[in-house]
Amino acid sequence: MSDGAALTEDAVVHTVLSIDAMGGDLGPTSVVAGLSKAAAKNPQLRFIVHGNRPEIERLIAKKRGLAEICEIRHAEGVVTMDAKPSHVMRNGKDTSMWSTIEAVRAGEASVAVSCGNTGALMAISTIRLRRLEGVNRPAIACLWPSRNPSGFNVMLDVGADIRADAEDLLQYALMGASYARNGLDLPRPRIGLLNVGTEEHKGKAELKVAADLIARAAPAADFEFVGFVEGGDLPSDRVDVIVTDGFTGNIALKTGEGTARMIRERLSEAFKKTPFSRIAALLAYTSLRRLIKRIDPRRVNGGVFLGLNGTVVKSHGSADATGVAAAINLAAQLSATGFHKRLAARIAQSEAAASLAIQKEELPQ
Amino acid sequence: MSDGAALTEDAVVHTVLSIDAMGGDLGPTSVVAGLSKAAAKNPQLRFIVHGNRPEIERLIAKKRGLAEICEIRHAEGVVTMDAKPSHVMRNGKDTSMWSTIEAVRAGEASVAVSCGNTGALMAISTIRLRRLEGVNRPAIACLWPSRNPSGFNVMLDVGADIRADAEDLLQYALMGASYARNGLDLPRPRIGLLNVGTEEHKGKAELKVAADLIARAAPAADFEFVGFVEGGDLPSDRVDVIVTDGFTGNIALKTGEGTARMIRERLSEAFKKTPFSRIAALLAYTSLRRLIKRIDPRRVNGGVFLGLNGTVVKSHGSADATGVAAAINLAAQLSATGFHKRLAARIAQSEAAASLAIQKEELPQ
Repeated sequence: MSDGAALTEDAVVHTVLSIDAMGGDLGPTSVVAGLSKAAAKNPQLRFIVHGNRPEIERLIAKKRGLAEICEIRHAEGVVTMDAKPSHVMRNGKDTSMWSTIEAVRAGEASVAVSCGNTGALMAISTIRLRRLEGVNRPAIACLWPSRNPSGFNVMLDVGADIRADAEDLLQYALMGASYARNGLDLPRPRIGLLNVGTEEHKGKAELKVAADLIARAAPAADFEFVGFVEGGDLPSDRVDVIVTDGFTGNIALKTGEGTARMIRERLSEAFKKTPFSRIAALLAYTSLRRLIKRIDPRRVNGGVFLGLNGTVVKSHGSADATGVAAAINLAAQLSATGFHKRLAARIAQSEAAASLAIQKEELPQ
Repeated sequence: MSDGAALTEDAVVHTVLSIDAMGGDLGPTSVVAGLSKAAAKNPQLRFIVHGNRPEIERLIAKKRGLAEICEIRHAEGVVTMDAKPSHVMRNGKDTSMWSTIEAVRAGEASVAVSCGNTGALMAISTIRLRRLEGVNRPAIACLWPSRNPSGFNVMLDVGADIRADAEDLLQYALMGASYARNGLDLPRPRIGLLNVGTEEHKGKAELKVAADLIARAAPAADFEFVGFVEGGDLPSDRVDVIVTDGFTGNIALKTGEGTARMIRERLSEAFKKTPFSRIAALLAYTSLRRLIKRIDPRRVNGGVFLGLNGTVVKSHGSADATGVAAAINLAAQLSATGFHKRLAARIAQSEAAASLAIQKEELPQ
């Protein structure tokens, strides 16, 4: 089941990540706090930190031992949350986000992490790292809490592009399978295509074409296709990778997060209600902490850009130290498993098989 | 703020609902149990119950006082969950679902309730009750747990049709506003249009056309348009009615339900984990019960078909007695407020204003 491509010695000795310190809603304070938190648990981490040097130096100096493992690269500009991606592509060369991606492009770091504007990050990543051979549309994959043994499913695309045709959805299936293999250690992931109603005659006609393509690519690409899945299957254990277009995926992602957040708030309210419930909260402290941790969206923070020559992890714009640390841990794991090279190899190989499947059928585009 | 149309004397004295006893996943047992549960709390309820007479008679006889308030109408056929709507439209005249809708058409009952196949129920409702003057596409609206004072938002369409153009979305806004006025007692509901990213330049182009239409109709139709909302806003208190196409709405609905269900399961697991947490669960019993009640999808069970000459409540296919009772309570409330006549009056009035707005702009279709 190996995806080939040996790890470089560098990646084994220490993991270098390229970090955009600016651009998130909470600014460099929460990014630096996240670096410190992640580094405390993983001594192999090294960071190239991009942004306003004086500000970052001051923040890093406050955290013991952090200065020794960080190299700061000054960048004058910041990509704001409401900047237009097209504007950033033309005028963003002096920004911390651009500099963050450049370090991956130059091979100085294995994975980039940013809390900034998603559209701009995808735009810069696409023009600087370029698409993998055989990929039309890059996608953003996220981890979704589920009843699976690993505790997660993968869903993609959750917002790289608002449209996807049948061939794009096939590529998402291939990329998602590779991510599940490397990120979740699943040798033969189960892929599902998101639709309404699981019966044959329901749902969008274009999704039937995609289902056909994915089913035909499954044997050669070494995944199992379980067919259509519904919104209710997202947290289920009947599927490992959920494939959908970026509009639907983004709505589903934010709906799930919003629902979990509301329940978490109500849970803490419930335990403050009466003296009894306050005592109860103390008694159930460990169990409750475990539960709240499991449903905490910050713990699964980090969308991964797939389909580029390099790995980019997009952290939530509003990520605090815990959220940033989660994104960094994910980046470190993907770096350690040599994910990027494995994905590229897998896409190249599957692409050949899939192209054959597509040609055989002469599907309408 | 009155929507006009005085309540009929009949509706004040007792509320007659037309109930499809067959077709749900759990069969007539859970439907009859739900009738009994709802009737116990609301002495004004009367039921016309459609389905297999011997079976229903036997079940009703077991519940004290229920036989006195039920009239049974025998129907030979049952619409199965996997039946094709087109087949049911041609061959479904002998089914309990058809008979259930007929009672509303004939004016014998004010609202119909069924746990059956959604597509078939929408198809029968549309051909027998027909569309309201001025409505192109009927929609299914659901209640969504939120931070609003009422505890709910309205979302539509959640699955009547997988497509909706800009004019359809405008009609959903009008119908949703009327539902929020009558179902949630909100004189001037806030309407939001579901999209990805709330910034102007994000999201689908066709949604910008719809946003324009809805904004222009708002003053005459007496609602506030808050613009685009995201998946994370569904449980929020910044909006009362969320408008979207039936594909996206259905995915969001099922994602939210699935997330809530998973958290509920984990909550009960967490409280069975250790002796301490078992004692804690006892101490926090009331608070927890309240919480679980609030996040229980069965408590908000009932999608309402809007845009037809008659009100139809679609209960979950897998609804148990609690779920069926929730759907019946909702039907009773809509019947009591004279919702159907108010909606029709409102649509007729708003439609005129909206047509003007559309004509003024000569929007591309």
